[in-house]
Amino acid sequence: MSRASQTSPVIETARRAKEAATALAPLPRTARDGALLAIADALTARTDEIVAANAADVEKARAAGTPDAIVDRLTLTPERIAAIASDVRDVVALPDPVGEVVRGSTLPNGLELRQVRVPLGVVGIVYEARPNVTVDAAALCLKSGNAVLLRGSSSAYSSNTALVAVVRDAVASAGLPADAVQLVPGESRDSVKELMRARGLVDVLIPRGGASLIKAVVEESTVPVIETGTGNCHVYVDERADLDMAVDILVNSKAQRPSVCNAAETVLVHEGIAAAFLPRALAALEKAGVTVHGDEAWVEAGEAEGVKVVPAVEEDWETEYLSYDIAAAVVPSLDAAVEHIRRWTSGHTEAIVTADTAAARRFVSLVDSTAVMVNASTRFTDGGQFGFGAEIGISTQKLHARGPMGLPELTSTKYVVTGDGHVRG
Amino acid sequence: MSRASQTSPVIETARRAKEAATALAPLPRTARDGALLAIADALTARTDEIVAANAADVEKARAAGTPDAIVDRLTLTPERIAAIASDVRDVVALPDPVGEVVRGSTLPNGLELRQVRVPLGVVGIVYEARPNVTVDAAALCLKSGNAVLLRGSSSAYSSNTALVAVVRDAVASAGLPADAVQLVPGESRDSVKELMRARGLVDVLIPRGGASLIKAVVEESTVPVIETGTGNCHVYVDERADLDMAVDILVNSKAQRPSVCNAAETVLVHEGIAAAFLPRALAALEKAGVTVHGDEAWVEAGEAEGVKVVPAVEEDWETEYLSYDIAAAVVPSLDAAVEHIRRWTSGHTEAIVTADTAAARRFVSLVDSTAVMVNASTRFTDGGQFGFGAEIGISTQKLHARGPMGLPELTSTKYVVTGDGHVRG
Repeated sequence: MSRASQTSPVIETARRAKEAATALAPLPRTARDGALLAIADALTARTDEIVAANAADVEKARAAGTPDAIVDRLTLTPERIAAIASDVRDVVALPDPVGEVVRGSTLPNGLELRQVRVPLGVVGIVYEARPNVTVDAAALCLKSGNAVLLRGSSSAYSSNTALVAVVRDAVASAGLPADAVQLVPGESRDSVKELMRARGLVDVLIPRGGASLIKAVVEESTVPVIETGTGNCHVYVDERADLDMAVDILVNSKAQRPSVCNAAETVLVHEGIAAAFLPRALAALEKAGVTVHGDEAWVEAGEAEGVKVVPAVEEDWETEYLSYDIAAAVVPSLDAAVEHIRRWTSGHTEAIVTADTAAARRFVSLVDSTAVMVNASTRFTDGGQFGFGAEIGISTQKLHARGPMGLPELTSTKYVVTGDGHVRG
Repeated sequence: MSRASQTSPVIETARRAKEAATALAPLPRTARDGALLAIADALTARTDEIVAANAADVEKARAAGTPDAIVDRLTLTPERIAAIASDVRDVVALPDPVGEVVRGSTLPNGLELRQVRVPLGVVGIVYEARPNVTVDAAALCLKSGNAVLLRGSSSAYSSNTALVAVVRDAVASAGLPADAVQLVPGESRDSVKELMRARGLVDVLIPRGGASLIKAVVEESTVPVIETGTGNCHVYVDERADLDMAVDILVNSKAQRPSVCNAAETVLVHEGIAAAFLPRALAALEKAGVTVHGDEAWVEAGEAEGVKVVPAVEEDWETEYLSYDIAAAVVPSLDAAVEHIRRWTSGHTEAIVTADTAAARRFVSLVDSTAVMVNASTRFTDGGQFGFGAEIGISTQKLHARGPMGLPELTSTKYVVTGDGHVRG
């Protein structure tokens, strides 16, 4: 294994994380859960300190003219800190992924083979804005026996520094190495770059945030990366869709929470149902405050219904709006819908609305995305909704983990082979 | 997903592979198995043609003064081709990984959640010398529903060209796209570089071969890589080892087949058993034709026994000899052995020989490698030995696959979520 040979504050942090990971790996569940409970208690006990540190970030953000919605996401109140502590307690209750025997058998020669889940080692998380991610990520990594390197947004630096100090003290008080949780030093992009080149020290890097951050990490990192979160999701309304169901799913997929990665960004409608569906969809979308960027058929329907439809340009098909906007087209067939999706999707979630089982089966088999919904909203692609209890992100790549990543996705495996003097003949 | 935008013969090949992968993904097992049977038949029917093409490579290799052992590995005889065809038939008999439901549940709201295995898409394999890998890799990729891009060694170019022509004809005759199996054009390293940058077209790159090839691919590739095969494996003889067992396991691990990645390269001996073990080990290793590169304790034992021991230098600890050589040291404790292993291992396979269950348990929990053997030879880390039926390589990395990679490791998963109009509240 090649190791980063140069040194710097970031590399030194990674080295300490690797040592902490080595110490963490053999610890039993009780030790890791004890640290998590200590973290939850400390967050409650030291709420004032965290709120004060957060106030500095909030003030700086307001002074810089940051939009209210972003300032709100940045803000920590005693209630929000209590909720974060409660989430940590929920993680304690989740099953321990470490030590799970994934596969096992006794081989014909009597060797006992077991494939056992083990921690990955050092997990690097690069994320933006929300300081609750700091604690969530630390809790999930500790639960799965990993050391974590946290590289949050500079706009939350003061909050993150306070949170990590509280977490580290709690971890140490529980007898675990404090360096299992560390903030990556430095506020510039250079520290992210150093993290990306720390192959041999960092086992995986998980970028969470905007598309440009993720693209940069994916392309430049020599540390293995798990790509997350970009969601250009589609809803396809098939020729044999129930119209009410299609309208409900479309509006929910788009407008229930437009700022997240599992919100729909494009609707495709089979031409056989377009005349019946488009007027109802336009009315419902307008009511939900959604602007449609449509092809010719949608523009015409809009004119007929008196709803303003913006003519779509090619860029609309690849845009992840994350806002009350949706691209819309009419397609001649299910296969044409699939082709459109294959061309433009980010591979996150696509939904079909249909009463036709053969159509559903074909759509599911041809669409190559993380999740395919049949008669359900795209908004369900989520670790919480899937019953995983927690999620560290939604992987849109094919290797290692695909879809919402829970605790098992933060582990690797090791083969343990036991004999009584077995040699190969 | 970013897509390679430039074009070239390599990129065009990758584009065709992606199209073929799209066509392959929805096909049922019978279609894929039919193509594999057609390949096996065609290899037998066109043996003469393959032998003739191979003769050109063999002649070129001989003229270039290639060592006999390498020429032998390159050589295809009718018997060897029959064996390759037989291996393809064995792959047909393996369980189909595609469509396996890995996880499934009905969520509290009634949504049906299934996590289903799907092909990865396009798999690139970069390998050296042996032309049998060409057919093996194609068979495993087809069985798992993937298109494959094969980039073999230039020394086997004529053989590989003939083999791939036979395979493609057979695949097409079975009604599958011939482009599911393609040789990457070009014999220079540039074609590997282009493959490494074809992110969005190639889903995973698996380098099989020497350490320098693997290092280059791991560091330069933007396509996700599965690192394989470098094996600096250790045998640790604990204070409470059975001496006969320890000698057998040591000699088998080192000398049963020294040229492979799961052969041992270093032996570590607890000081409490060194006086009893070293003389016996030296005699057995000498008999097996192995040269010991030892620390002071081993050199002294060698002098006492009249066996030549080469004084070890630091480089020996990190060397994957792949020959009848072994590095050897005496350590003060199990923990010291673990520390040595953690520092120098490539993360492949380590073995402990001990009668002490607590020692075995501690070694297993502290060693962070793909496979840990307790009282068994390192040589058992192998897909065939593990009962996987076939292997595409042995991953020494932690993400996606770790250890021998069988068919499931050539797949990803997709979540299929079925409702009857479910929306999020």
